[in-house]
Amino acid sequence: MTTAVCPGSFDPITSGHLFVVERCVERFDEVVVLVTVNPSKKGMFDVDRRVALIEECTAHLPGVRVDSCEGLLVDYLTRRGLTTMVKGLRGPVDFQYETPMAQMNRELAGVETLFLLGDPRHAHVSSSLVKEVARLGGDVSPYVPAPVAAAIADTLR
Amino acid sequence: MTTAVCPGSFDPITSGHLFVVERCVERFDEVVVLVTVNPSKKGMFDVDRRVALIEECTAHLPGVRVDSCEGLLVDYLTRRGLTTMVKGLRGPVDFQYETPMAQMNRELAGVETLFLLGDPRHAHVSSSLVKEVARLGGDVSPYVPAPVAAAIADTLR
Amino acid sequence: MTTAVCPGSFDPITSGHLFVVERCVERFDEVVVLVTVNPSKKGMFDVDRRVALIEECTAHLPGVRVDSCEGLLVDYLTRRGLTTMVKGLRGPVDFQYETPMAQMNRELAGVETLFLLGDPRHAHVSSSLVKEVARLGGDVSPYVPAPVAAAIADTLR
Amino acid sequence: MTTAVCPGSFDPITSGHLFVVERCVERFDEVVVLVTVNPSKKGMFDVDRRVALIEECTAHLPGVRVDSCEGLLVDYLTRRGLTTMVKGLRGPVDFQYETPMAQMNRELAGVETLFLLGDPRHAHVSSSLVKEVARLGGDVSPYVPAPVAAAIADTLR
Amino acid sequence: MTTAVCPGSFDPITSGHLFVVERCVERFDEVVVLVTVNPSKKGMFDVDRRVALIEECTAHLPGVRVDSCEGLLVDYLTRRGLTTMVKGLRGPVDFQYETPMAQMNRELAGVETLFLLGDPRHAHVSSSLVKEVARLGGDVSPYVPAPVAAAIADTLR
Amino acid sequence: MTTAVCPGSFDPITSGHLFVVERCVERFDEVVVLVTVNPSKKGMFDVDRRVALIEECTAHLPGVRVDSCEGLLVDYLTRRGLTTMVKGLRGPVDFQYETPMAQMNRELAGVETLFLLGDPRHAHVSSSLVKEVARLGGDVSPYVPAPVAAAIADTLR
Repeated sequence: MTTAVCPGSFDPITSGHLFVVERCVERFDEVVVLVTVNPSKKGMFDVDRRVALIEECTAHLPGVRVDSCEGLLVDYLTRRGLTTMVKGLRGPVDFQYETPMAQMNRELAGVETLFLLGDPRHAHVSSSLVKEVARLGGDVSPYVPAPVAAAIADTLR
Repeated sequence: MTTAVCPGSFDPITSGHLFVVERCVERFDEVVVLVTVNPSKKGMFDVDRRVALIEECTAHLPGVRVDSCEGLLVDYLTRRGLTTMVKGLRGPVDFQYETPMAQMNRELAGVETLFLLGDPRHAHVSSSLVKEVARLGGDVSPYVPAPVAAAIADTLR
Repeated sequence: MTTAVCPGSFDPITSGHLFVVERCVERFDEVVVLVTVNPSKKGMFDVDRRVALIEECTAHLPGVRVDSCEGLLVDYLTRRGLTTMVKGLRGPVDFQYETPMAQMNRELAGVETLFLLGDPRHAHVSSSLVKEVARLGGDVSPYVPAPVAAAIADTLR
Repeated sequence: MTTAVCPGSFDPITSGHLFVVERCVERFDEVVVLVTVNPSKKGMFDVDRRVALIEECTAHLPGVRVDSCEGLLVDYLTRRGLTTMVKGLRGPVDFQYETPMAQMNRELAGVETLFLLGDPRHAHVSSSLVKEVARLGGDVSPYVPAPVAAAIADTLR
Repeated sequence: MTTAVCPGSFDPITSGHLFVVERCVERFDEVVVLVTVNPSKKGMFDVDRRVALIEECTAHLPGVRVDSCEGLLVDYLTRRGLTTMVKGLRGPVDFQYETPMAQMNRELAGVETLFLLGDPRHAHVSSSLVKEVARLGGDVSPYVPAPVAAAIADTLR
Repeated sequence: MTTAVCPGSFDPITSGHLFVVERCVERFDEVVVLVTVNPSKKGMFDVDRRVALIEECTAHLPGVRVDSCEGLLVDYLTRRGLTTMVKGLRGPVDFQYETPMAQMNRELAGVETLFLLGDPRHAHVSSSLVKEVARLGGDVSPYVPAPVAAAIADTLR
């Protein structure tokens, strides 16, 4: 059985993230969407809420599980015998940001990161830009799944 | 009548910013230099002072108005029937930073961002580097208009 | 009257080029789509055909004229009293390629190049990739206006 | 059964290419190393020789097949019901070069390209640099598998 | 006598930094490894400890001195009649980050920055990534000299 | 005695190249400007003429010698006991282009390449753009030393 782990902070999950998960579902038996927890950084949503939102947004996709982890990302994979992560790249900035971590994860634990291109229509979409636009009153519904748009609206009310 | 909006935090305006405004003055009937306010980020100068400094530095340029705005930048333009912003690019880092916002602004409100190249002699000049050098005692007068150099010196005294 | 010159080799015009022309039409009184001729490089279409295809594809756009030029691009503009070019940028590769020429054109003749972002859905579309795919039998109709798709098919028959 | 196609011109295969194939072997049931033929470009080795060299260099790896194709790369995959390619990225230049083709292949045929990082020790190794160094008399044995080093030496003798 | 200054925050020194110092030792009579102090940023190690760790790690290298400085980096050099700094570049991100400061230092004081390529095996190694991995329990001994690995372990205990 | 080798095709030398040589003269006892010969590429000037033009343009600089070499660049240095090259970088494109060769030269022969930033006013100046502009009738005298401007005019007459 092949398993792909899609890690991220997902605060919250965007349509760009979902596009990557969908591509993985077509190519791997199992996909674990993994919320990585950074205790020193307070997000818009707490970890349980992020997990719940992802579960709601991926309920229609077969073989997807959602989980969260603290500590070293590769430890999570190693303990479960997993060796493959998949991440989306929106452009060269993402590529340059991901490269050192992917190389480190390969060296620390033999975990390989496979990258796939994001949908160009989402190339400018990030959780942080979505939150900034939403806070300033802009409509972010084209950039996030419907349950996330509702959750953001709730939070900002 | 054609109007270009030149947005930025302008904390403070530099010679690089002024170069962009000058190029716009030659090509548009009206140029609005717009100080965008980020309430969560304390700058070296408050918004009124930034506006006053820009007004002093652009007094010799016909058709320039200075204003400030809170909230979503495209709302400012949309309310006034404006659809064109102009920003300077010092190099690829600027290009990559500006791209997601420009794309977002196009989608949110049909506002287009036109980019023009900064003067290569200012390619390393930013408000933040100017402030850092000034704080450490360096001479920043080559990088900012004279009134700004005086204001920085005042503030640091 | 404001005039924007959109230069390029346009061998042939793509949907990405057309997107840029459309953005210009909304912001300038007149738009000149200018086929630049490189005598040492044989294209798929000769210059007259490129001009004719652009004319067909922009017939619905007000204020658009199509022309061609040999020799130094800025001479074409200077002789007509024009000072503004507009080019689309698909990403950082384009930005880095265009920068030296834009800077050179500013210095040689005071001609300014304004850049605007291409449509992300066309970020991978270039005349040369379109021709390569078409030669290998792929369907390029999503990437070029209909008259161009027909002209390519004719040429390859 | 999962199959990864590793396409390239492989003129000749380098240690960098081999590293990518090895990572694939660990993650896919079958790996097809596919020599893409560009009739208009004469290489150092003809296609049959390239295929033979790859076969020799991958003989120890289970599940690897070597093949070649003319015409549209995605047609090769589609005809065989394959939907996944894997390519190595040595750095941002590779990323920017591969992006338009990967996007095109996704749109033309639903073929997805997964990227993985090259070994940093091979980041500067390309078939063309290897050939250039070899032609000038440099020792390229650290950069290519032993059979390839021998074949290059033969060819240049 | 030729002198190269290698500036950095060195919190702590990594194997990547040490590689650069070693290349300098072969090419300059004297090498000053200079810890630059940023009072507003608390590090893992205080300045004295950083200096002591560098001294321990460079004890075997002839002609190396370690020092620290507050204030404008070029003032440190100018007061000592020095005009050359050397920095390592791991990749394009480093290049783009270093460029404005190098240009500023040239203009402020005629100080030139010479760049050399980092060892590709360290391309993903930074003080901050090392600290992050160590805090999460990962083994960082491949990335830092042995005394630094011990000091990090001590600090995190 | 410290020696820096400044290699390039110099077809012809530009003001950007000269800027780099001048920075080297201040920091090394001897500077060798080295014209690298690519037999398969016909330039505007033959190698003897390139050498003569560089000699004329650097006559005022102490410690500069001009030479040419065929074959592997590092062989030239190794035979003379030299280990240091210096190259100018105009921007990230240059950095990415130079990186593989610099790494290769380090590995082949222990030759290190030191990079320094070009003058931003020359960031868009290359031998090839200068030749293209000159061929189209543009004035290139701001971009090349006076003897080179004269030689180009002669050649094109």
